[in-house]
This record gives sequence, structure tokens and C-alpha cells, in this order.
Amino acid sequence: MTKYVYFFGKDNCEGSAKMRNLLGGKGANLAEMSNLGIPVPPGFTVTTEACVYYDTHGKQFPDGLKDQVKENLVKLEKAMGMKFNDPSNPLLLSVRSGARVSMPGMMDTVLNLGLNDVVAEGLIKKTGNARFAWDSYRRFIQMFSNVVMDMEGELLEHILEAKKHEKGVKLDTELTADDLKSLVPVFKAKVKEVTGKDFPTDPMEQLWGAIAAVFNSWDNDRAKRYRKMNNIPDDWGTAVNVQAMVFGNMGDDCATGVAFTRNPSTGENKFYGEYLINAQGEDVVAGIRTPQPINIAAKSAPSEVSLEESMPSLYKELVAIYKRLEDHYRDMQDIEFTIQQGKLYMLQTRNGKRTAKAALRIASEMVAEKMIDKETAVTRIAPAQLDQLLHPMFDPKEKKNKIAKGLPASPGAAVGQVVFTAHEAEHLASLGEKVILVRIETSPEDIGGMDAAQGILTARGGMTSHAAVVARGMGKCCVAGCGDISINYKDKQFTAGSVLVKEGDVISLDGSLGEVYLGAVKTIDPELGGHFSEIMQWADSMRTLGVRTNADTPADAKLAREFGAEGIGLCRTEHMFFEGERIKAMREMILADNTEGREKALAKLLPMQKSDFKGIFEAMQGLPVTIRLLDPPLHEFLPHEEDKVVELAQEMKVSVEHLHAKIESLKELNPMLGHRGCRLAVTYPEIARMQGRAIIEAACEVVKEKKLVVLPEIMIPLIGDVKELIMLKKEIIAVADKIISESGIKLDYKVGTMIEIPRAALLADTIAKEAEFFSFGTNDLTQMTFGYSRDDAGVFLPHYVEKRILDDDPFQTLDQNGVGKLVEMGTKLGRSTNPKLKVGICGEHGGDPRSIEFCHRTGLNYVSCSPYRVPIARLAAAHAAIRNKN
Amino acid sequence: MTKYVYFFGKDNCEGSAKMRNLLGGKGANLAEMSNLGIPVPPGFTVTTEACVYYDTHGKQFPDGLKDQVKENLVKLEKAMGMKFNDPSNPLLLSVRSGARVSMPGMMDTVLNLGLNDVVAEGLIKKTGNARFAWDSYRRFIQMFSNVVMDMEGELLEHILEAKKHEKGVKLDTELTADDLKSLVPVFKAKVKEVTGKDFPTDPMEQLWGAIAAVFNSWDNDRAKRYRKMNNIPDDWGTAVNVQAMVFGNMGDDCATGVAFTRNPSTGENKFYGEYLINAQGEDVVAGIRTPQPINIAAKSAPSEVSLEESMPSLYKELVAIYKRLEDHYRDMQDIEFTIQQGKLYMLQTRNGKRTAKAALRIASEMVAEKMIDKETAVTRIAPAQLDQLLHPMFDPKEKKNKIAKGLPASPGAAVGQVVFTAHEAEHLASLGEKVILVRIETSPEDIGGMDAAQGILTARGGMTSHAAVVARGMGKCCVAGCGDISINYKDKQFTAGSVLVKEGDVISLDGSLGEVYLGAVKTIDPELGGHFSEIMQWADSMRTLGVRTNADTPADAKLAREFGAEGIGLCRTEHMFFEGERIKAMREMILADNTEGREKALAKLLPMQKSDFKGIFEAMQGLPVTIRLLDPPLHEFLPHEEDKVVELAQEMKVSVEHLHAKIESLKELNPMLGHRGCRLAVTYPEIARMQGRAIIEAACEVVKEKKLVVLPEIMIPLIGDVKELIMLKKEIIAVADKIISESGIKLDYKVGTMIEIPRAALLADTIAKEAEFFSFGTNDLTQMTFGYSRDDAGVFLPHYVEKRILDDDPFQTLDQNGVGKLVEMGTKLGRSTNPKLKVGICGEHGGDPRSIEFCHRTGLNYVSCSPYRVPIARLAAAHAAIRNKN
Repeated sequence: MTKYVYFFGKDNCEGSAKMRNLLGGKGANLAEMSNLGIPVPPGFTVTTEACVYYDTHGKQFPDGLKDQVKENLVKLEKAMGMKFNDPSNPLLLSVRSGARVSMPGMMDTVLNLGLNDVVAEGLIKKTGNARFAWDSYRRFIQMFSNVVMDMEGELLEHILEAKKHEKGVKLDTELTADDLKSLVPVFKAKVKEVTGKDFPTDPMEQLWGAIAAVFNSWDNDRAKRYRKMNNIPDDWGTAVNVQAMVFGNMGDDCATGVAFTRNPSTGENKFYGEYLINAQGEDVVAGIRTPQPINIAAKSAPSEVSLEESMPSLYKELVAIYKRLEDHYRDMQDIEFTIQQGKLYMLQTRNGKRTAKAALRIASEMVAEKMIDKETAVTRIAPAQLDQLLHPMFDPKEKKNKIAKGLPASPGAAVGQVVFTAHEAEHLASLGEKVILVRIETSPEDIGGMDAAQGILTARGGMTSHAAVVARGMGKCCVAGCGDISINYKDKQFTAGSVLVKEGDVISLDGSLGEVYLGAVKTIDPELGGHFSEIMQWADSMRTLGVRTNADTPADAKLAREFGAEGIGLCRTEHMFFEGERIKAMREMILADNTEGREKALAKLLPMQKSDFKGIFEAMQGLPVTIRLLDPPLHEFLPHEEDKVVELAQEMKVSVEHLHAKIESLKELNPMLGHRGCRLAVTYPEIARMQGRAIIEAACEVVKEKKLVVLPEIMIPLIGDVKELIMLKKEIIAVADKIISESGIKLDYKVGTMIEIPRAALLADTIAKEAEFFSFGTNDLTQMTFGYSRDDAGVFLPHYVEKRILDDDPFQTLDQNGVGKLVEMGTKLGRSTNPKLKVGICGEHGGDPRSIEFCHRTGLNYVSCSPYRVPIARLAAAHAAIRNKN
Repeated sequence: MTKYVYFFGKDNCEGSAKMRNLLGGKGANLAEMSNLGIPVPPGFTVTTEACVYYDTHGKQFPDGLKDQVKENLVKLEKAMGMKFNDPSNPLLLSVRSGARVSMPGMMDTVLNLGLNDVVAEGLIKKTGNARFAWDSYRRFIQMFSNVVMDMEGELLEHILEAKKHEKGVKLDTELTADDLKSLVPVFKAKVKEVTGKDFPTDPMEQLWGAIAAVFNSWDNDRAKRYRKMNNIPDDWGTAVNVQAMVFGNMGDDCATGVAFTRNPSTGENKFYGEYLINAQGEDVVAGIRTPQPINIAAKSAPSEVSLEESMPSLYKELVAIYKRLEDHYRDMQDIEFTIQQGKLYMLQTRNGKRTAKAALRIASEMVAEKMIDKETAVTRIAPAQLDQLLHPMFDPKEKKNKIAKGLPASPGAAVGQVVFTAHEAEHLASLGEKVILVRIETSPEDIGGMDAAQGILTARGGMTSHAAVVARGMGKCCVAGCGDISINYKDKQFTAGSVLVKEGDVISLDGSLGEVYLGAVKTIDPELGGHFSEIMQWADSMRTLGVRTNADTPADAKLAREFGAEGIGLCRTEHMFFEGERIKAMREMILADNTEGREKALAKLLPMQKSDFKGIFEAMQGLPVTIRLLDPPLHEFLPHEEDKVVELAQEMKVSVEHLHAKIESLKELNPMLGHRGCRLAVTYPEIARMQGRAIIEAACEVVKEKKLVVLPEIMIPLIGDVKELIMLKKEIIAVADKIISESGIKLDYKVGTMIEIPRAALLADTIAKEAEFFSFGTNDLTQMTFGYSRDDAGVFLPHYVEKRILDDDPFQTLDQNGVGKLVEMGTKLGRSTNPKLKVGICGEHGGDPRSIEFCHRTGLNYVSCSPYRVPIARLAAAHAAIRNKN
């Protein structure tokens, strides 16, 4: 017979902190505290296994559970010297959820269970405290009817409010025993009226109802959403903790409180918490009465009365316990306690949630205090949390007028005037104005405007839309796919619900929350204190995976280097072609009818490209810089609006018809799978030659002029067959070696490829013979491996994640089973023919912690991500190394 | 020292027919004939290895070659009792190419080599035949200057013509010795004038020039093109055969001829050939003098004089030799002979090229004659050749006025009036007119018109464009991507060069050649005689791979069954949705705002789908029918032209704006990677339910009403994750099992998937647990594995094949390295978790012989192809089985 129930208590405790998977976090910690001799009301835990059984067997309890619960209830009665459903000496119970990892507030709880009219009278007799008994009873009816009987909590709350109104009081505590007593039959009648069922009077029936309700609450909507957001598997299930009630509401020698062993917001090593006299735990959270600070140090007004003052000896006892707990768990604890008639009970301890800032300080200080080692300290920071720290953010104290919500596409905070065109954004920015660029969606033509704007707001597109990807690359705040707004370009305005926002109006964007506010919200700058750099240094010493950045400009390169990037993993050259004079030359090249004409136009681009590269090489001196050759299809460089076409035709001295015909001929049904990447260079090798020349000339000049070390790596995109690489490598080497030998300096450069087409991964052994490095372009690799267009998948992908056909959006977190298999094959096959092959990843996944762990396990040499994600990647890489050490 | 030269001759022959790879076909057969004691002028063969060395070493001969040639020349002089460059007894040589496989006319030849002024005089002295000597000399200068010195042949030909004109004669043979002699210095002067070089007088210099020229001719343009067309590797190289000249032009006791041991056009077992008295081989081909039939039976006019009549005993000798050769090689031979002063010499024997019809007859009759076994007979027919037989074709005797050439997209012949819209095509066809549909490109909306037309001509799109794929599926003649024509829809006309073709004008299309003719060309119907079915029966008994068909209509199903299809491997349901009332219901579904509305519209489609399926089940009774659920993106069903949109809006009673908005919202940037395939059914499960119902109800009714065996296989397209399959299978099984149990009959049906997304192949082990069959959709799999859009790759793919980055167009012949790796993985992984898994292929590749061999080797259960390719696939499958037997 499977053991489904574990007892905890002073003497015969069956669990421990190690049994978290089976007993849940709360149950394991209650057992652990009992083992430590800390005062915990005894009880028993129904295991997560029982919940999983219940979930997968049509809501049936497993065989044997009923008997095991009964046996343990008897044990509990013995331990307490009281009896469940015995009016003469009644035992009341709390029934609480507790999953493997804390999901605070997501699942259900029932307190004061075991009460009925007879037991309530017995309780009065035993305690002599009628008010306490009726207060507990009415609380129980409220909670049970809501949690177990699915009745809206508001309904009874209204009756309670009406009673207070009738009595002319404000607080529940001001109601008398009689007031409360009078509520009980009214509550019960309401329950009957709404649910059609009598409120159960049998305490055993109450208990089983509560256990089932907690099991069921594992699958309520908010719990499911929470799990999805936090990547918690759906099949873990929750444990149920049935525990003897202790009461903070028996009088003024009673109290209840919650506390953190250190400050969860700042990390300061000070005991921090709140409590209420004569109350049950829910009151502290509910906010009807204002909780008091736990100690004198935390008081913000002299009128406040701390526990340190009101119950000094109990406070001392609590301090001793929290220190013991922190010492035992070696982490900041979030504790709950209840004082019943002068006796302190601990109801919960768990590792406390904290801000990124607090996490860094606590980890760092605990190392200094020799509580933990550096490795542990590093693992205490969730990499994704760092994102909070790296961007400017809104002052949390500010009031905000939220008018719309979209996707948190690129974190940070931005305030500015609304503009609707990239052109206007650039114009106003050049006059020193701060602007927010608002577009239905962005296209490569908008790059300049995006760069000029403080932030970007789009009505369409997902987390990996053009706007989102480019904004993250720029470290620019972006709210994307904001369906709440409706843009009218013609009238230069948008509406968000009933709010009309016109060009020039000021809005604020929170890219971390995806929220849009009307008006200007005050921002505060990030502070990257000493704890941050200390922990990052430790992380760097632990990781084996390199971290590079995706950067297209000297400014980005510099920023990323400050954030710890060890090189550039992806420098996209096409962004360079969209600005000012450059796009003209680019268009001239596209419109040329022959190689000669193209070469003439390319010659104009050469000095511009070269100067960009020089800037980047200087910023990254001593570190490798991977430059990708032209990638996007040529039609992206041509205008599509009629007036722009006419303008361009005049500029290029061709007929409008001719230009239209050219634009038409470049149109593609599936541009993603069309004439782009190295296919452009295979058909027009002069492009590769020009770019090769620009890179190598720039490198030689920086070496010569500045005496810096330059390590260029030329990356050929979209290789599908080694013969493409052979052909283009030959073109590039011919140009490069000539320039180097003419310059008379020594320059090492590498030629390698993106692996972003499934076929390239499948045939990586042949390709690696010719490539000095691979860089997995997991964005495109994901598109092709899944057959999902990133631009179009928004229609069905949310559906897929919702229905759990996919566990994650594969554009955010690398699909390890499918795409990952290709990455593994590609790496293994590549190294089989070229053991010195350097392998990296430069897709969006390079900044995603779980994907980074995969890269570590797969033996990649580095990941590359946008500048603002570099610290996250460094930390994630350290975590991966630590976790996979054995 | 590598042996680069092999001698052949009566006594000391070093080669044999088995050494074809080294000596080339011609060299090996010359050696073989020598070994057989057949009279062959002696000589030696320079190996293909020497050519490969020459090609890969900057046109340098390998070490030792010069010496080996010299030694063999001495041997040859000894064998002939003559001496090279000895005026007193001169040996002249022929220098001929000869690759592993015959590439007739593609490479170069030099005859009469060894002549100069002195040798010519010696030849006269020795033979007493001045005319012969000067004729040989001027021929040599013409050939050598053209082949070795790269001079245009026309230039000397003009001088010859002028001389004939001057002398008032028509034939070369009418020129006297003096006439010919006078040409020699004029020719030489012209050579000097044009090439700037003296014509070489040193015979050894001539010999090396000729050898180098033959090597070089391996890489001339027409040879390269021929190799590409016939899939001959570029790195095989050619051998060079240096042979003692024998002369058919020494007088009227001399002759030269070519013959086939059986009729190469009909296959009839009759000796068939042509010859000329007093001529060299080139004259037979050149067509200046009309060659005479070789035997009395072949005479078409009494004035003709056959060899059988003119030289009866030599004819008898020739007959004995040809019989011996055919018997020896056990195949129809193509032979060349020369008679020098009453002595017969064989210059060549090789397996003769033949038409498909002849191939079938020869193979069948040789089995009857016990010359070959059935297996050999089957391998004698090239599968692709059958295509000639299966479609109507133009009478080869008809005169044609070719006005344009495009791609041979779908074979056959078609004649009809030009129309420019599908609507007009349907209209005229309903009046009994024959029409050719001419479009810039076709779209799914044109299906009806394509079906109504005799043939389809498109200006754009490749071999796998919509027009091409659909036409092949329909077995309809199609010329696609015909860039020669320029279509003007507005004026209802197109131009092809200077020819203007208006609506209503009659044109003819040859889909096998890709040619367009003005006016009506007479067609003849295919005759599938007894030889065809006999050989196909043998093939069927040898193959292990099943052959199914891709068919969407009962008519196609019936046709394919007649062609031997063993079931339907792919029945696309979407084509059914484009006709008449159906598209209305389909559009109604697309425009519905909720599940209810969609279900209402789908209910209208149900009876139509069901009746289609019933027809197909009846046609295919007893054989499996695989039906694919709806695949294309929904926007394909909506109109895009403004007037059509307005019309539809009225019909659907929605506003034009609303309809535009809907069309806009369905637009996709990369529809290939968008919301299609099973993704439609995952978001709208009601579609899968309706289709499942239509299939199973149709099956049950056919079983009940007609007492036929029906084997439906429901195929879910575009699966990327097993969870999609699990979800949809559940929906379908729920519907299907209910219908079956209600109908009270027994029906076996299967549910399986397309494997067409790389991820599905990578994770096939998980998918196979839920699938009863896999069908590799290699069209889409190729698109995604390569990252090539079939619709857009036309811009760069020809480039890729041209530059040999790819060996083949991967949409025509399966890419075995890359896509094939996924097919292998998918098959292996799939069977690892489901050993009973049936695996097939239903892409275009299912009808391509080389791809079929791959499918056989990979252990697939069947291939599926369009009806007209079924016999080709059956034969190719037999070839694969035979070739891979050991």
C-alpha cells in the first residue's frame, strides 16, 4: 500500500525538508521545523502523489487514503490532547495547499475546519471566549463556502458589511460575540439559497471537502497561468497540509504575523515584518486593519506599536527562531507565525521572494557571513531577474494612468511625444525632443526612427516581431502587439478604449510590463552597485560558455562590452544600409542591370561600410568581431508606397514603370525562403567582394593607425550546401589576402557560416571542412524546422501554447527536442570533421537562460545576445556550468 | 608508373569490354571486337584516367604518357606494316573520343591525321590515287583546323563551296584530284590568316594536338549540357582512341556506313542501316550525298542501290558480324564500318539508342529469343522513356511553326484556341470548343479552367510552379515559365517575338519539349501494345515497392488504376473546395465569426465532400485510399480582385470593408510557413470533424450500398509535434467510431500523418506512437529543409544548378544527402517505436526514377505519384529492386 500521508509533530515526525517533491514545500518545511524542535502545531501532509492520482483518475481519491487520513487524525488528536468533532474538547484544523515550489496565493486554504453549531458551543464552554468562537465559526463558513462550495466570497462579505453598518462600526474586531453569532444562521441560509446545498455540519465531511478543494485548486485558472509563467510542470500536483489550528484571534494575548529574515526589497540584513494583535493570518493580508511593524527599527511613526514593544519576550523568542531558520536553510526566510494566548507557533517557513537588488545583496552578504559559498550565491540569482536592474524604470511610487496593455517586448521605461512615422521621429529627435514611435508594425525602413525614439509601441506583432527584435537589439523599450490601441495614420492619432491620443501628446511605456500610460511618468536610473559586479565576477569565474553580443554599431558594441561581452557574435551589416545616402547607393545597386552597374554602386557603399567597421573594431579591440554578410532579400530596400516610388524613379533617372516592374520582379511569395542570405552573393558575388573588402580594409587600417588588435570573423549566412561556402570563401579570401599582403601588416581573420537552414545542420560534417566557425542562427532554424513563419505564427502560436501543444513559444525558448536536435547534430557532425571548429549561437535564444543551459550542455563555445542581455547570459552560463558539473 | 595507354589489335589486345570505365565505351568495344577476331583496324586507347589527370592539373599530360604513346605507335606501325610520317609507306591515324557512356556527337574527332605535303605525295606514289590523297589531305586540314586550332569550320567550307561553284559541280566527289590539290595551299593560307599560326606539318605535333583537343572537348559547352541532361558526372573524363585509318574514299571498291542490328524506331528485328560508296564516315552524316539503304528490304525506291546488291559478299560478311556482335553483347548494336578496297573493317559497335516503343519490343523479343532473361529485359527500358508513350503526341511528320519555348512542365500534346481566363476556358469548353489556357501564372482559382482546357501555357513559374504541379496531376499538357511570350490581359493577346497571338487564335503545345507552335499540329494517340504490358508485368513481379497514385477525382483514380496504381497515396481535399457552390460554402465558413457559424457552413460542404469520396472509394474499391485533410491557408479561398470582392460581399451580406478587413487579416508574409495544414484543424477542430465525417460516412455508404471493400486512410498534414496528432486523432476517432457503430457495418480505417516538416522527421519516434502510417510530403520537406520557397526559388535555383552548387533541382529529384537524411531518420525512428508503421512518399518525387530508387533503399512501403507517372514508377521500382538485390 502506497503511503500517502506523513505525520509531523514534536515526537513522531515522518518528513523532512528533503521530501519537498512528495510533501510540497510547506509540508516539508513544517516537518523540518518540527524536527528542529521549533514550535509547530502538529498535523499531517497528504502527498503530491495523492493529488496526481486524483487528477489523473477522474477526481477519485486513491485507495487507502481515507484510512491513512483517519489514522493520522487519531495521532493528531493524541498529540494535541483534543478531539475532532468533540464539543467538550474540540480540535479544529487548517487545510492548506503546498506544491513543490511556492505558488503564493494561487491555491486554496480552509481554516477553522471542524466547527458546527454544537462544536461552537463546546468551544465557548472550553475557552470561555464566545466572541472568539463565533468569529472563528463565521470565518469558517465564509472560507469553506467559497473554497469548497464554489460560492462567490462577496456574497457573505456583503452581509458582514451590512452588519457592521447596522452596528455603526468599521472593523470586524468591533463586532461583539452576539453580532457574530447572529451572522452564522444568516450565512448558512445564504449558502443554501445560492448553492442549493446545506452547509455541512459533519466535520469529517468538511475535511474531505476541503482536501478535494485543495486538490482541485491545482487546476484553477490562476494556478495554471502562474505555472505557465514560471515554467512549472502541470503534472506535479500539490500536497495538502492538515494541521491543528492555533488561534491568533482568542484575545489581546494573541497575534499573528508574517516576516522576512532580511529585507526582501533591499536585501538589508534586518528582520522585517508585520503583525496584528487578535487576528487570524488572513487579516494581515486583507488590509482591513493596518498591520503593525514587527520591530522598533521598522517603525515609521511613533503611534505604531511593534511586536518588540507589545510582546518583548515573545519577540525575542521569534528572533531566536528566525535566526535559527535562516542558519538552517542558509537563505533568507519568509515566515508565518501565530501567538495563541502568549505561546508562539510557527506556521510556515520558506525561502523568501525578493527583488533582483535584494537577491544580489543577500547572496553577497551571506558569502561574507560565511553562510554560503560563492557558487551557491551565484545560483541564488535568477538570471531573468537581472533584467529589472539593467534598464531605466518607472519610479514605483508614481501614479500611473494605464490606457492599454500589450506584450512586454523589450524592457525599460520610456516617456515621449507620440509620433507616427520614423521620419517624424528622426526629425523631432534631431531637435532634441523625446518621442515615442507608434506604428501598426515596423519595417526595416523604420530603423532610423526607432533608433531616434525613446521607445516603440506597435499595435501588431509578437515578441519576435520586427519591432521587438530590433528594439531588444537596441536595448530600447518596446511594447508590441498592443491590440488595445487602434491607430489612424491619416488623422495622426490613436485610440485606446475611450482615450484619444494625438500626435504630440505625451505617453509613457513600460517595456517590462507591456503597459502604456497617458502622460509622463517619472523614471529612475538603474543602480548597478558593488553587489552586482561582485556576483557577476564570481559567475564569470564559474562559467565555461563564452558570452558575446549582437551589435551593429560602435555604440552598441561599447555598451555590450561594459556589460561584459567577450566579443561580437553577430554584427548585421544590413542595418547599415538603411541610413541616408546609403540606401540610395543600395537601391542603385539593386536597379543596376549588370555586374558593372552593381559594382559601381557598391563602390559607393564601400567607404561607408568600412568606416562603420572601423568604429566597431575599435570598440571591440582585442576581442573577436563576427560580421555577417548581407542577409535580407533585396526588395526590403525598395519603397512600396507610390509617392516614394515616383520620387525614387526621378532620383535614379528611370521610368516609374521600369521601377514598378523591378519592384514587382523582386516580390516574393515567401520571402523568408527566397532570394536572400548567401544566395544573393552566389548570384551577385560582387556584393561579397565589396563587403569582404570593407571588413579587411577597415581591420588593416585600425591595426595600422591605432595599433590595436583586431579579430574579424566573416560570417556567411543561410548556407545550405558546402559548395556555396566554397565558392564565396574563395571570393572573399582572394580579396582579403590581397589587401593584407599589400598593407604589409599581419592580420588573422576567419571565415565561417551561420547554421540556420536544417540542411546545413544535417550536412554539417561537409560544411565544417570549409568553415572555421559555426554560428547557429536559431531564429531562422526554428522557423524552418517548425515550418513557422515568425511573422505569421502569431495567429496560431498563442493557441498552441494555450493548449499546451507546445510548452513554450519556440522563438523565445529554444525547442530542445526538435531544433535542439539539429543544433546537437550540427555541432557533433561539424566537430567530427573539424575538431577546432568554434561553435556559437546568435539567435534570440542566446539571451534566454534555459536555452543557454542547453547550449552549455551541447558544448557550444559561446552564446551571443543583445547588449542588455549580456549579464543575464553570463549568469545563466554560470548556472548551467554549476548545475551540470557532475 | 601508371599505365595510360592500352593497345588493341588482332594479336596483342590489352583491353576488353569490361574495361569501359578506363577505356571508354568505344575503346573497350574496339578491344572486345579485336578479341573476338572481328576485323578492326588496330590502334591504342589513351585512358580516361589520363584525361582526368589532364583536367585536374591545368591541362598537363601525366608523366609517362608521351613515352607510352610513342611505344604504342611503334607497335601500331608494326601491326600495320606502315610508318607514321614515312612518305614511302605512310600510316595515317584517326583520333576519336570515347567516354564511359556514349555521348554521340558531343566531343571531337580528327581523321586522316599524319598528312603533310611530303606524306601526301608519298601517299599518291604508294596508292597511285592522287584524288584520294588530296581529298584526305583537304579533309584533314578542315577537321584539324576546326577541332584543334579552334577555327570556324564554315571558313574553309566556303572555300570548298566556291571551288565547286567555279567548277560548276555540286558534289565533293565531282571535284578532281587537281581541284582538291589546289585547295590545300588556299586552306593553309586561310588558317594562317585566321589563327595567326602555321598549319603544323609535323605529324607528332598533329597527334598531340589532336589528343589534347579530344581531352578539351570533354569540357565544351555542348558536352557539359549533355552530361547535365543525362546525369553523367563531370569528373569521368573521356578516353582517346588512336587508330590506323582505313579509307572508304579510295574508289568505288570502297564504302562506309552505319547500321543498327534492329530497327531503333520500331524495334523490329531487321538489320537496318545506310552506307555510301567512296566516302568517309562523316559524309554519311553530313547529308550532302544521300546515303543508300543497306539492304534490299529497306529500299524505298527501285533507284536506290543497297549494299546487299552492290557488294553482296561483303554484305553477307557484315551480316555475319552484326549477328555475332548482337549475340555477344545480347543487345541491339549500333555499328560503323568501312570498306577499303574490298575489305571490311568494323570501326565501332555500341548498344544502340532507341525509342521507348523500340526498347519495349526489342527487350520483349530478345526474351522470346532466349538472348536475355526477363530481369535484363526490364532493366533495358529507361523509366523516364515511358513518358513518351503515355501521352498523345504530335505526329513527328508534321511541319511545325515554333514561336516560343518554355519549360516542358507536363508532357503531352495539346491544340486549341487561346483563352486568357479560367472562366473563358470553362465557358468555351462547355460549348465543346478546345482551348489552351494562357496565363502569366496560375492560382488555385484557375483549377476549373485548367481542367477544362486542353493544355496550359504560363509565362512565369518553374517545373514545380502551381501550373506545372496541377497539370501533371491532371495529366494535362503544360508549358510553363515561357519567358518568350509577353501577355497582355487587357487586350487579350500575347506576343512571342514578332508574332502576335490573339484570343481565339489556335496554337499547339508540346509539353514534352516545352514548345509552342502557331496553328494546329496533328496529334497521334499513344499505342500501349502488348510489349508494354508484358514488360510491366515482369517489372511488377520484380519490385517490392508499392506504387500508388495522387488523385483527387474519381476520373483520375480510374485512370491511375488502369495504369496499375495500387491505391491512392494522396487525395487532396482542397481541390474539391474550389468548384461552383462549394467555394461559396467554404467562404461562408471562413467569414464566420464563431464555431457555430463555421459548423453551419461546413454542414453545407459535407454532402459534397461525401459524394466525391464515394466516387473515389468506388473507383479504388479493394485498395487503400489516403485522404489528406484540408491543407492550404484559408486566404487562398478568398478573391483578391476588387470586383470579385464586391460581388462576394453582396453574396455574403457583409460590408465590403468588413470583407476587406477579413482578407487583410488572413494575409501572410510567408503563407508557406503560416496558418495551414493541421494548424487550421487545431484552431478550428470543426473542420477536421466535418472531413472525418464525410470520409467515414462515404465509406460506410459504399460498403453498404455497393458491397465493396473500402480502405480509407485519413492523413493529417503538416504535423510538427505529436500533440497535434493526438488532439486531432481524438476528434476524428470520436466522429468515425460513432458513425461506424451506428451504421452497423465493419470498417477498418487508419489515421496517419504527412511527414513534411523537418521537426516531424526529427521527432518521428514520438509521432509514430500515435500514427498508423507516415507519408513523406517531400515537396514541403524540401522547401523547409533547404529553406527554398518553390514559388520563389526560380530566381536563383537555375543559377545553382548551372554553377553545379546543386547537382539537380531538388524539387524534381530528391536531395538524398539532406532531405533524404530526414526521410531515413524519419523512417527509422518511426519504425523504432511502431514496427508496423506503413511508410510512403507522396511528393512530386514519388514519380522520379532516381528518387524512387532512394525510396526502395530506404525501405519505404510505397511511392505515390500522378496517374501518368504510375507506369514509370512501377518500372523504376523494379529497377531499384534489381539493382539493390545484392
